[in-house]
Amino acid sequence: MIIKMKKNAAQEDIQKVLNRISEAGLSANVSTGESLTIIGVIGDVTLLRPDLIEEISGVDAVMRVSRPYKLVSREFNPVDRQIKIGSITIGTGNFVMISGPCAVESREQMLSSARIVKRVGADLLRGGAFKPRTSPYDFQGLGEEGLKYLKEASEETGLPIVTEVTGEDKIDIVLKYADVLQIGTRNMRSYDLLKKIGERTKDSKIPVLLKRGDNATITEFLNAAEYIAKEGNENIMLCLRGIRTFECGKFVRNTADMGIIPVLKRETGLPVIFDPSHSSGDRDLVLSYSAAAVAAGADGLIIETHCDPETASCDGKQSLAENQLVQTFKLCRRIRECLVQEKAYSW
Amino acid sequence: MIIKMKKNAAQEDIQKVLNRISEAGLSANVSTGESLTIIGVIGDVTLLRPDLIEEISGVDAVMRVSRPYKLVSREFNPVDRQIKIGSITIGTGNFVMISGPCAVESREQMLSSARIVKRVGADLLRGGAFKPRTSPYDFQGLGEEGLKYLKEASEETGLPIVTEVTGEDKIDIVLKYADVLQIGTRNMRSYDLLKKIGERTKDSKIPVLLKRGDNATITEFLNAAEYIAKEGNENIMLCLRGIRTFECGKFVRNTADMGIIPVLKRETGLPVIFDPSHSSGDRDLVLSYSAAAVAAGADGLIIETHCDPETASCDGKQSLAENQLVQTFKLCRRIRECLVQEKAYSW
Amino acid sequence: MIIKMKKNAAQEDIQKVLNRISEAGLSANVSTGESLTIIGVIGDVTLLRPDLIEEISGVDAVMRVSRPYKLVSREFNPVDRQIKIGSITIGTGNFVMISGPCAVESREQMLSSARIVKRVGADLLRGGAFKPRTSPYDFQGLGEEGLKYLKEASEETGLPIVTEVTGEDKIDIVLKYADVLQIGTRNMRSYDLLKKIGERTKDSKIPVLLKRGDNATITEFLNAAEYIAKEGNENIMLCLRGIRTFECGKFVRNTADMGIIPVLKRETGLPVIFDPSHSSGDRDLVLSYSAAAVAAGADGLIIETHCDPETASCDGKQSLAENQLVQTFKLCRRIRECLVQEKAYSW
Amino acid sequence: MIIKMKKNAAQEDIQKVLNRISEAGLSANVSTGESLTIIGVIGDVTLLRPDLIEEISGVDAVMRVSRPYKLVSREFNPVDRQIKIGSITIGTGNFVMISGPCAVESREQMLSSARIVKRVGADLLRGGAFKPRTSPYDFQGLGEEGLKYLKEASEETGLPIVTEVTGEDKIDIVLKYADVLQIGTRNMRSYDLLKKIGERTKDSKIPVLLKRGDNATITEFLNAAEYIAKEGNENIMLCLRGIRTFECGKFVRNTADMGIIPVLKRETGLPVIFDPSHSSGDRDLVLSYSAAAVAAGADGLIIETHCDPETASCDGKQSLAENQLVQTFKLCRRIRECLVQEKAYSW
Repeated sequence: MIIKMKKNAAQEDIQKVLNRISEAGLSANVSTGESLTIIGVIGDVTLLRPDLIEEISGVDAVMRVSRPYKLVSREFNPVDRQIKIGSITIGTGNFVMISGPCAVESREQMLSSARIVKRVGADLLRGGAFKPRTSPYDFQGLGEEGLKYLKEASEETGLPIVTEVTGEDKIDIVLKYADVLQIGTRNMRSYDLLKKIGERTKDSKIPVLLKRGDNATITEFLNAAEYIAKEGNENIMLCLRGIRTFECGKFVRNTADMGIIPVLKRETGLPVIFDPSHSSGDRDLVLSYSAAAVAAGADGLIIETHCDPETASCDGKQSLAENQLVQTFKLCRRIRECLVQEKAYSW
Repeated sequence: MIIKMKKNAAQEDIQKVLNRISEAGLSANVSTGESLTIIGVIGDVTLLRPDLIEEISGVDAVMRVSRPYKLVSREFNPVDRQIKIGSITIGTGNFVMISGPCAVESREQMLSSARIVKRVGADLLRGGAFKPRTSPYDFQGLGEEGLKYLKEASEETGLPIVTEVTGEDKIDIVLKYADVLQIGTRNMRSYDLLKKIGERTKDSKIPVLLKRGDNATITEFLNAAEYIAKEGNENIMLCLRGIRTFECGKFVRNTADMGIIPVLKRETGLPVIFDPSHSSGDRDLVLSYSAAAVAAGADGLIIETHCDPETASCDGKQSLAENQLVQTFKLCRRIRECLVQEKAYSW
Repeated sequence: MIIKMKKNAAQEDIQKVLNRISEAGLSANVSTGESLTIIGVIGDVTLLRPDLIEEISGVDAVMRVSRPYKLVSREFNPVDRQIKIGSITIGTGNFVMISGPCAVESREQMLSSARIVKRVGADLLRGGAFKPRTSPYDFQGLGEEGLKYLKEASEETGLPIVTEVTGEDKIDIVLKYADVLQIGTRNMRSYDLLKKIGERTKDSKIPVLLKRGDNATITEFLNAAEYIAKEGNENIMLCLRGIRTFECGKFVRNTADMGIIPVLKRETGLPVIFDPSHSSGDRDLVLSYSAAAVAAGADGLIIETHCDPETASCDGKQSLAENQLVQTFKLCRRIRECLVQEKAYSW
Repeated sequence: MIIKMKKNAAQEDIQKVLNRISEAGLSANVSTGESLTIIGVIGDVTLLRPDLIEEISGVDAVMRVSRPYKLVSREFNPVDRQIKIGSITIGTGNFVMISGPCAVESREQMLSSARIVKRVGADLLRGGAFKPRTSPYDFQGLGEEGLKYLKEASEETGLPIVTEVTGEDKIDIVLKYADVLQIGTRNMRSYDLLKKIGERTKDSKIPVLLKRGDNATITEFLNAAEYIAKEGNENIMLCLRGIRTFECGKFVRNTADMGIIPVLKRETGLPVIFDPSHSSGDRDLVLSYSAAAVAAGADGLIIETHCDPETASCDGKQSLAENQLVQTFKLCRRIRECLVQEKAYSW
């Protein structure tokens, strides 16, 4: 932590800063220029709350030098993390394909969609039984009934289930059915929910797929993961799904954030999954978004598919039909091979 | 709702659209140009889910003409809403001042701060007992102990309490102490929490102060209010607190959204409160931000104050000392008088 | 300038940094922690280009401590600047009203609009003869013919002229007619144009109204002003007109940036003008946006008005009719009086 | 064009709209619901200025259905464009690599850098002689001297030159040396400059590389291209280089917009080039950004390279050394092959 005092800050204020540093059991390095004093803090800075420094009136700026997140940072834990779900391995060079409908709509739709997902060779099956929707008048999901259809589809195909938990009192019910808990973009900053999920899964360590909030900074995203890790479950996959910028709307649903894939891979050892369906909001863009994300180094993709996209009750416009999914998987696997052969990345 | 078909869309697709409209019990008006077909939907459009139309392949765009929110819209309910808390009236031309510390830190700090709030003549007392923080290592609030201090301060000063609910299983405990429930910016899109709060307060109709998510569109903000209203509690105050844009960071904490005050006043009859403390993140800007928000037509302000800003455990940098609060209130009241005398707005 | 080296940076890299500092005639203060080295640069840092430091591989981050702009900064020149145009004074507590049509469309329209502007008591007359339009098929302005009508209107009413220069080879022609040169938002980062305007006006020191680019940071905005000042003309007014964010579109044209008014007033002594017409894009919001900007401490307003808003060839939707302009001016003057009486700001 | 009237708009206002439509020689289709009237305009809508409709007071919204740009749109001209520079072909399935230093700094630096660019097998040589910099105190480029070094490097290596025009009065001098004119991100909305470049190159039809403004919407980007095309030069390459969002700063310089590559390919037949250097601002991200852009369907890359990145006077942090460039080119070519073999895109 570096503390920049205001020009001509009072000696008294400088002393206040030094006192708080020493109260936290840390030591300081004071650098005094003509009109400027800079204080460097030495030691485990997480012991010192920056806000307690910032509010001293002579302080101009406090610059955090080390990361506020710890367990999930590569700085603290340099290895690539590996997540295992039955026979499936995610991370450390293993690529994973997750697919399925946005929402579970009926037994038939779920089963037909799951069969497509199985046929094209995906590893995990997704489907939402609880749907967080912008309007209270939109379809909110089938609830536990949906989870049952999902389970049936999972048992028939052998594909493990990824499904979303939308609130605290849904955790128990979702845990009865899910193999991976998904936390959606709208809840990435619902810290109470994150903590509860961390607590409830600290023993089972069931993997959590955490989606980036559509306006979350990278620091906030990794802090959200840290909330879960701190409670005892570090089996976290980070999922990018597009952000909201001035660009969104007419041509694309979100601004695709595949550029953040290599940044996350550098900052953390957690696997990074990309969602081309929500990033684009348009099935005709899913092929190129998937290819780009794989080329950028993603550890997996989560793609919406539907047995009959035109009747989907949710996000049908961005769902792939089977032939599109086949083409997408094939291209992505080939690009992935190039990366491996060229030793493009560290895995 | 207006549906624009793609250039040279198949007749079959047009028919699909018309079928879905009639299945929803609505009627359609088809306008056919040289290469373009436009379909207008007539009737209660909330009965028709736009996503079911969008996913038909010949459809280019679906434009919602009426609002997706209903109960909270002026279109549906044109009157200004009035919220009563004991002898205090909010909305319909009544101006309200809410103040207090960001977080309850101790009995002494809460009591001293509350006495300032009382002395300067504010109407309601704020203070956070549960704090949603970006990092799990930051101060998370005193919990129920904090609520007790808040209650004691409220009883001594006679000021009703505004305090935040951060998660579903905190609702009951907060309801034991609060006069107004606050929903924070990070939870504005936690729809499960919104629904639960709506359900639990549908009888008491305790007022809810809903903060805008820092990247929420106006439509999303009003939809979030609609989630609460739909469950039975329409006693909602909308609170603007700055948004996140490319501008944030070096000079200001957020981009102040006081420009949305008159937009909300036009779209809805709910009272609109402005938070100059979080908008600016800087106590030296609170005076001008408050003055601007009042001039723009806000129905109230929520301002952070602290008995000793330099020791605040949270957001001390943006907390006012007593003399600054006095100056801010005085200026705001004078501007408010001008607005009334000039009949600037409809109240 | 503070230079943070990467964790365990090579001693060689640290030496490289120190060499470049001393080559620039500056001295350094090295602070070495357990695994971290911080270097503070002492002296006139504008002599050292940060990019020459950043590219050394052991460098993690370079933090500019002093402003990159100098002539226009309060740090360098703490006084409030005053701009005089005939008998009109702008800045140092003097408030100015600028009004007129977006574009000059015809002699009649310009004269009628100017008479309104005169009648309501504005100080300066605006009108665009060269119009920078997003589409090449939109109305591009009347050119010099427009400037002549503007001049005639100015002579009849006695109001000095504010008009835009859209390109380098328009500077001469505009200088023949204008009393204030306007630089539009789209050209704020056309540095060649800024330099040319600075050079051409260094003797006359004709005032320049510089609009903020709709995605310019505050640093970029002040750097743009610095480009002009550096060539010899410091008679610059800064004009805020809304920025582009995720919020823009459905309800407002831009995100109003009145929150930046007090920030600019703190960073620089230049007068700050606010444009409620482009900020909102909606005549029904101009009253509240104007009131808010005045309350926030603006030194003036620039408001679009039109003798017949419904036939305006450009931005008619945001132009005020005479009665709305009267109401807006009246309210703003009253708020301004409150600010003076309350000694709200330093003027 | 679709015009939505306000609820219960006066019949008189509807008539005004219809009059303006017929004055423009177009016909209208009126659709009247219970309280809502929708007017569809039939014919060549570019003849009707939307602003003349919007300002009629009973009009609620005007929705453009066809594109405001014409010459550069696929709707108007469905074929893929091909650009030829000597023996090099760009577009229609031909992939191009452009590389070189950000700025020309000296004869030696330019020659050494050009030899790298040649050795690694790039097609075109970039280098800036005129540099648009945020601060007037930053290095502004060598001017014509730089162009001469660039020419010498081009003659030695046989690589055609891509270099930036920063202002109107630089066009002539740059045309003496350049094979491709670059328009930078800061000037994308300098319409006077765009028009002048279009006029001056309408006979030679020298290719123009137009960079997207960092806050330009896709519509604005294509309108900027239209400005040039309308003057007579349609040999335009579109270049994406990252946009400014809330994300920029700590981890990346810009938000990479490779997600827009397939959108542009759909909207226009012009070649699309991606700039991984400015998108990331970090040489360690250039490999993955390049791979992603190629996978997304880019027609070419423009990558900064430098003979000695650590001494670069501009953007050294994002410049590649030779070995990194070799690795990047190799990976990109392999991914490109996959795309061709898999017939991923239409070329």
